[in-house]
Amino acid sequence: VRAYVLSFQCPDQLGVVAQYSQLFLEVGAFITEISNYSDPVSNTFHLRCVFDDRAMTVDFMEFQRRFTAVAEALGMHYQLRPTDELPRVLVAVSRYDHCLNVLLNKWKSGALPARIVGVVSNHTDCRGLVEWYGLPFHYLPVNAETKPQQEAGILAVMQAHQVELLVLARYMQILSDDLCRQLAGRAINIHHSFLPGFKGARPYHQAYDRGVKVIGATAHYVTADLDEGPIIAQEVRAIDHQVSVEQMVHLGHDTEATALSQAVRLHCEQRVQINGQRTVIL
Amino acid sequence: VRAYVLSFQCPDQLGVVAQYSQLFLEVGAFITEISNYSDPVSNTFHLRCVFDDRAMTVDFMEFQRRFTAVAEALGMHYQLRPTDELPRVLVAVSRYDHCLNVLLNKWKSGALPARIVGVVSNHTDCRGLVEWYGLPFHYLPVNAETKPQQEAGILAVMQAHQVELLVLARYMQILSDDLCRQLAGRAINIHHSFLPGFKGARPYHQAYDRGVKVIGATAHYVTADLDEGPIIAQEVRAIDHQVSVEQMVHLGHDTEATALSQAVRLHCEQRVQINGQRTVIL
Amino acid sequence: VRAYVLSFQCPDQLGVVAQYSQLFLEVGAFITEISNYSDPVSNTFHLRCVFDDRAMTVDFMEFQRRFTAVAEALGMHYQLRPTDELPRVLVAVSRYDHCLNVLLNKWKSGALPARIVGVVSNHTDCRGLVEWYGLPFHYLPVNAETKPQQEAGILAVMQAHQVELLVLARYMQILSDDLCRQLAGRAINIHHSFLPGFKGARPYHQAYDRGVKVIGATAHYVTADLDEGPIIAQEVRAIDHQVSVEQMVHLGHDTEATALSQAVRLHCEQRVQINGQRTVIL
Amino acid sequence: VRAYVLSFQCPDQLGVVAQYSQLFLEVGAFITEISNYSDPVSNTFHLRCVFDDRAMTVDFMEFQRRFTAVAEALGMHYQLRPTDELPRVLVAVSRYDHCLNVLLNKWKSGALPARIVGVVSNHTDCRGLVEWYGLPFHYLPVNAETKPQQEAGILAVMQAHQVELLVLARYMQILSDDLCRQLAGRAINIHHSFLPGFKGARPYHQAYDRGVKVIGATAHYVTADLDEGPIIAQEVRAIDHQVSVEQMVHLGHDTEATALSQAVRLHCEQRVQINGQRTVIL
Repeated sequence: VRAYVLSFQCPDQLGVVAQYSQLFLEVGAFITEISNYSDPVSNTFHLRCVFDDRAMTVDFMEFQRRFTAVAEALGMHYQLRPTDELPRVLVAVSRYDHCLNVLLNKWKSGALPARIVGVVSNHTDCRGLVEWYGLPFHYLPVNAETKPQQEAGILAVMQAHQVELLVLARYMQILSDDLCRQLAGRAINIHHSFLPGFKGARPYHQAYDRGVKVIGATAHYVTADLDEGPIIAQEVRAIDHQVSVEQMVHLGHDTEATALSQAVRLHCEQRVQINGQRTVIL
Repeated sequence: VRAYVLSFQCPDQLGVVAQYSQLFLEVGAFITEISNYSDPVSNTFHLRCVFDDRAMTVDFMEFQRRFTAVAEALGMHYQLRPTDELPRVLVAVSRYDHCLNVLLNKWKSGALPARIVGVVSNHTDCRGLVEWYGLPFHYLPVNAETKPQQEAGILAVMQAHQVELLVLARYMQILSDDLCRQLAGRAINIHHSFLPGFKGARPYHQAYDRGVKVIGATAHYVTADLDEGPIIAQEVRAIDHQVSVEQMVHLGHDTEATALSQAVRLHCEQRVQINGQRTVIL
Repeated sequence: VRAYVLSFQCPDQLGVVAQYSQLFLEVGAFITEISNYSDPVSNTFHLRCVFDDRAMTVDFMEFQRRFTAVAEALGMHYQLRPTDELPRVLVAVSRYDHCLNVLLNKWKSGALPARIVGVVSNHTDCRGLVEWYGLPFHYLPVNAETKPQQEAGILAVMQAHQVELLVLARYMQILSDDLCRQLAGRAINIHHSFLPGFKGARPYHQAYDRGVKVIGATAHYVTADLDEGPIIAQEVRAIDHQVSVEQMVHLGHDTEATALSQAVRLHCEQRVQINGQRTVIL
Repeated sequence: VRAYVLSFQCPDQLGVVAQYSQLFLEVGAFITEISNYSDPVSNTFHLRCVFDDRAMTVDFMEFQRRFTAVAEALGMHYQLRPTDELPRVLVAVSRYDHCLNVLLNKWKSGALPARIVGVVSNHTDCRGLVEWYGLPFHYLPVNAETKPQQEAGILAVMQAHQVELLVLARYMQILSDDLCRQLAGRAINIHHSFLPGFKGARPYHQAYDRGVKVIGATAHYVTADLDEGPIIAQEVRAIDHQVSVEQMVHLGHDTEATALSQAVRLHCEQRVQINGQRTVIL
């Protein structure tokens, strides 16, 4: 038995569910997980399902052919993949390694449904950790002059390893608008504040100055508008006046690592669909 | 345009989605909200959808007739109701009025999708509040000898007002096994602890003695096993060593009222399905 | 035995604790609660303690005289009050009554350590509720022309009732800069977002558009900079893509009422000290 | 300038604050952090302060001599240590490495105010990770017959490295009553549930069966009563019906690691005092 995960979005209309499910019934695709959402504002229909071939009466090629016809008729954007083919992920990091460290630990233990294929960094601090996990470490230093070439280097690594998702795990460089566009929907960043509060640099310092009682971290898709991309996951933690900026930085490590690894997990399980500036999590 | 909410559960099998959605397509039932869940442990399929008749080609009686046939074929338990017919709710309370107070305020402002038809109580403390809201207050005192008659009185009020849900809003009497059985799936209790910790009496005292750092409240369906019924909603709140039992009681008021009103909202929107000792929230 | 609560802040220096505690020892003031904080950034010392006179060897007038000498020597701002003299509070409200409703319920049950002396409103919607609680309802309508007079009316009510704290419980008028200055540290507002995100009008709409996964409410002191005053309490609640703006408004009611009543409780127990743009909660 | 952290508890009585603070003033000990708590139930006074010698007029030996006199007079249990002498910590682990992994990462980055001196384990799975961090890995296998010798081995490692705190980071062996007593107040365990719910084995399975809507983790001191020791930190995370036992295990990793590292940080900063079955966190 082989299982597949299908996710799609399309304009909402009468019979969307009937049409795709009729096909599933005809070919004997057995659904084991299903969730969906009709957005009343954008008038879009969103669905994610997992099905297997225990009762399938056609082969997968034929299923794909027939599904494509339905998808075209309904104007779908969709993604269809066997669950045993994990998405290929590249992690980018600078010097702070706490997010990287948790991602690699989860990946190794099987808790992260992804295939991490390597790490890129503009510093060498994390080389030892990455290599201990048996992963290639791509050192791509960058300065104002070399930024275009360095970004080309990142893309080259992505192409060489057929990377589907770039995870910025406290990567402290702002991507160029051009790279943001190329990676639309395929790059996740962790911002160490509860967006939209404290965008930009040194958010914990901003939070301290403002005297907030709760800090947070936000995992979001990268867009050309800095820290404005669609939000996937947010984690929060109560603090009090005693917590210094330095302690916030340390306490924030847990919040950041949890939000980022949660977002990567959701994305890799095809649970996230971008719906304008919002996301639907199925 | 009239809208309807349908919720059902049935044994999981190939084609469940296709069968019901085929019917919907045939009669032109336009789905605006849909969510579902296939439980891999109990092998049950759970669905909730909201649809309207903007494009319906048959009348509602005919729709019901045809849906009943599908429901029988698939072995469904289902509930089908126009969204403008709100569930009729009776609240039971003893002396603490904080949960009742929030329920009535939400009901009056339209935040609670229910039609509260009255309040029963074994004390008279809350009469003034209830009558201020223009609701009938049924005073049904109880002691060890009169318990059967008093419970008969509650049932009589429920029947007289066609009550579909009894909400125990800090009602400090334990219902008899017999009444629990009669009200299976139709009575929600708020327990002022984070179940399964601190079952039974005086949970805040138990929590204080144990020195927990988080307190909570649990809204659950009533069953003959005290504080063991399927959980609908849980709310938590961090505390520290400075919080006395008395302060816990006060702080807990918010947690209890929030959990209970959330559970009542979920139930009344037909989002809750009982699945053994667990619930599915759609 | 009579108990007193003392709170003060002063520049930090060697011997602050020794000097005040030496006085307490000399006069036999028995401390039952104490907490304090030395702010390393502002170099201020903050203290709150509760003491009683079970062993006091001087009368309260004499204690006050001697404490004043210490307070002046150390440059203190302080507040000293018997715990049985509850702070006098006025609530301002417009049309939404969910925060007012919870405040009044807590006040009546004794959960709020304050003496609510009345409610002012620019609408009449809440009159019935307020009068049911036996409190005076001051109707002070306002428009662009009458704003100065209306604010003078609020101040007149405050003076007539010796009000120490004004609580804006979803009062939808922006106070003039002049009134803000007069009420510095004596007026608490509830903002229905997690500040500093979504300042200003219609924060739930802003939150919906931005697609956040957590909403919140912030209780803060009123200052002339709108929604920028020192934060006292923040509450958060996870949401998902299914939650409409209307549902956010309803779900937010609990968060707002909890944060506001928590802030009022902290203020009335003299636990809050303003430290620049931040607060110290003792 | 050298800083010191002092924490003590003693029976509450008039003049405790005055006596210790008088000494501090006399010797010029400059307090930079102070917090304290008077427990009204146990009648104990708890204090933690940080002070430095910038203005000290005696040497540290003389300070200690004079403080000891005060401590004896007041019946204190106390701990006094220069802040640059970090507590020596030994970690025990079995096969799951997620808690160990976060502890080591925090330790290396300076986020954990402790000196980790090694890791003991009854399995060899974590040897590579531990040695990558440059720490000694003590492999001490155990079975029913060898338990006494193995525990003696743990104690021998603790003595050899002057270990002050043993951290059970998902160490899956139950310590003998005798070892629990020897390590009273010096061993912290992480239990992967929100105690007191789901004590003992397989708590995530218990939580799944019970259908809870929130899971948690509890860091507590080890006592002979399994999972009943004084609680230091608890973390929670909302879940829904979709979360399988396997996913709970994975999601729980973050909660466990956060609660455990928070508890270790609090203990090592001398912020935790055991007060019967409860803890005071200063």
